Amino acid sequence: SNIFKIDILNNILYKIYALIYLNCERFKKTAKNVFFLSIRLSALIMNIKDKIKTIIVDKPLKLDCGQVINNFPLAYETYGTLNEKKDNAILVCHALTGDQFVTGLNPVTKKDGWWSYAVGPNKSIDTNKYFIICVNVIGGCMGSFGPGHINPETKKIYGTDFPVITINDIVNAQVNLLNHFGIKKLFSVVGGSMGGMQVLQFVSNFPEKTKTAVPIACTSSHSAQNIAFNELGRQAIAADHNWSDGKYSSNNSVPDKGLAVARMAAHITYLSKIGLQEKFGRKLQERDDLKFGFDADFQIESYLRYQGSVFVDRFDANSYLYITRAMDYFDLVKQFNGNLSNAFKNTKAKFFIISFTSDWLYPTQENKDIVIALNAIGADVGFVEIESDKGHDSFLLEVPDFLKALKNFLDKSYLGN
Amino acid sequence: SNIFKIDILNNILYKIYALIYLNCERFKKTAKNVFFLSIRLSALIMNIKDKIKTIIVDKPLKLDCGQVINNFPLAYETYGTLNEKKDNAILVCHALTGDQFVTGLNPVTKKDGWWSYAVGPNKSIDTNKYFIICVNVIGGCMGSFGPGHINPETKKIYGTDFPVITINDIVNAQVNLLNHFGIKKLFSVVGGSMGGMQVLQFVSNFPEKTKTAVPIACTSSHSAQNIAFNELGRQAIAADHNWSDGKYSSNNSVPDKGLAVARMAAHITYLSKIGLQEKFGRKLQERDDLKFGFDADFQIESYLRYQGSVFVDRFDANSYLYITRAMDYFDLVKQFNGNLSNAFKNTKAKFFIISFTSDWLYPTQENKDIVIALNAIGADVGFVEIESDKGHDSFLLEVPDFLKALKNFLDKSYLGN
Repeated sequence: SNIFKIDILNNILYKIYALIYLNCERFKKTAKNVFFLSIRLSALIMNIKDKIKTIIVDKPLKLDCGQVINNFPLAYETYGTLNEKKDNAILVCHALTGDQFVTGLNPVTKKDGWWSYAVGPNKSIDTNKYFIICVNVIGGCMGSFGPGHINPETKKIYGTDFPVITINDIVNAQVNLLNHFGIKKLFSVVGGSMGGMQVLQFVSNFPEKTKTAVPIACTSSHSAQNIAFNELGRQAIAADHNWSDGKYSSNNSVPDKGLAVARMAAHITYLSKIGLQEKFGRKLQERDDLKFGFDADFQIESYLRYQGSVFVDRFDANSYLYITRAMDYFDLVKQFNGNLSNAFKNTKAKFFIISFTSDWLYPTQENKDIVIALNAIGADVGFVEIESDKGHDSFLLEVPDFLKALKNFLDKSYLGN
Repeated sequence: SNIFKIDILNNILYKIYALIYLNCERFKKTAKNVFFLSIRLSALIMNIKDKIKTIIVDKPLKLDCGQVINNFPLAYETYGTLNEKKDNAILVCHALTGDQFVTGLNPVTKKDGWWSYAVGPNKSIDTNKYFIICVNVIGGCMGSFGPGHINPETKKIYGTDFPVITINDIVNAQVNLLNHFGIKKLFSVVGGSMGGMQVLQFVSNFPEKTKTAVPIACTSSHSAQNIAFNELGRQAIAADHNWSDGKYSSNNSVPDKGLAVARMAAHITYLSKIGLQEKFGRKLQERDDLKFGFDADFQIESYLRYQGSVFVDRFDANSYLYITRAMDYFDLVKQFNGNLSNAFKNTKAKFFIISFTSDWLYPTQENKDIVIALNAIGADVGFVEIESDKGHDSFLLEVPDFLKALKNFLDKSYLGN
């Protein structure tokens, strides 16, 4: 992540300063400049870290792998205002590469929040009406307990010594935020993709802690093809010379090429074949004809390279390994011995499930399987398949039918409060 | 490729031998052993190279990039017997990672030929009846002129100094084999995937040189999604520390990790989502439960890793770059200014086009577009979409309906000779 890189840079700068200052009378002025630069960078890091709200969870959490974690940080952000009855809270769960900065300017990346289309004043998830909480998943790299943190036992960064976590662990960590705000019952828990998996797991683990649940473009059990694409990304990271078995931070390097390839692979799966064809087709990149070389001749090549390159500035390679692993391990069907209905039998929550026609990563059928399981136990469930050629990414984009359906469900359900 | 690795190893062994022999009286016996080992390896290389039949094309070929090549090798293999009238010849065109060893034992990889299901005595392409020719594409790594060859100007291996080639160049090189055998007109030209692109280009370039044409699971214009997947593979190779801008052979190293990642990505696209789910689903790899680590827990992970690892033993990374580039550049529609029909207006060849229901890389619609273009000019064209859950790979596998359809078309057309 950015903070991480700046931290490394600052560390190096400070060493250079010390080296010059102590050994070389002649360049004391340079040393002074280096010193002040390192001070400014320190201020920048503190500034970024300041913008990340954190609670320390002091209740031990037993992970699925068997390890117990304690006193770990959870980074979060909130939008809107919690009302007096504390019945207007919505927990938004982020996807693989998301973070707690759902909408507005992300103070760390300086880009728009990942769900700016859906969350805001008068938007689908209306910040004038609801109190929105989003928590960075554990294993992530935006402040919550993750592989970039220091292992208190070894005093070194965890790297791949970090425990393998699951969607269940992520949800069990997140629930601590509700206690922090004194929220007994959420109005809703909402999320797309891996966020949707968290929604399903949340309702299953805490059947009485939410009035409604909206899993979007997700699945109850990660498919072989999706495991395959995640494994491809992990292998791309592991193939990077700089990865060094996850110990890259102690080498002051980052496996950015491998992480970029992983992102490119994932990005292709987020878009639909027809969407790509309509948007890019065989259009050339700032040239009149093919150049007969390996530069990006086609716009789609240039676009993918760009997506890879900007991603490495904001995401940590080890976090990518851990979070994809959590997705692959997700199998709510197996957790309930092959009967998904049992995951929801203790809840009275009202469900609304949304899929997209051109999503081939979490196709409509996998979303329908959840509807079928809910119907089988007479749960309160609505379902809509939204027509869109934007693929899996539809839930993040300006797809009016989707945004209206989401708003309508939430606002109608809230009226009935 | 294997030969390449053995060559490097042999080179090193010879240097070790020389070093010991010249400098170190005490270890002369070791030197002798090393020397004999290098001799045995030389014999092995000659043995492999012996198995590759080659012609040298001494007619200059102007490539699409503008360069002219001359006196270049074309490696090929034949099966069956050319009859006296020389009217029973079938040119089989191979796909991205194929080679000239279509059926039977591949003498270099020691594995079955890539189309053993379709080609052989009494099979779809009947070696008792037809004379089958297959040529390693230029840019490839099984003996034809490619980036692993020595550049006569620099005396070094071409690497990325090799000219970027196109499907048109590949086909224009291949046609020299017909002259070599004195074949005026082929009975058929057949190929799947990139092989199918060559079939289309062949009929377009040489409308009178074939009686029939069978493009299988292919396209007339490479789509944005397919360019994206190829670009992903190229970026994976380029991200490998060992690639060294394509100059890896002079460093005695191979970018095997990057090439394995490229292969894994491609492999996912060759299979269908449903096929993967049925074959692998979430089955675990030789364990009773998840291990909470990054080893291959799931069979699909282990399978992909295996596919990646065996590929690097038989394929060259630079060839992968060049051949994927040729595929991406393929756009027969654009070659004929947006009217695909014009590509075929001068031929009387009988076409038979085959697609597969679960092929999402070259879906039925892209194959149908070729049928439509042929119908528009009243060409003789048959089309069949084969039901299969094996994805794009269907054309390489035992899919009885496909194998029967192919046999039926060829044998019926041959009867009408």
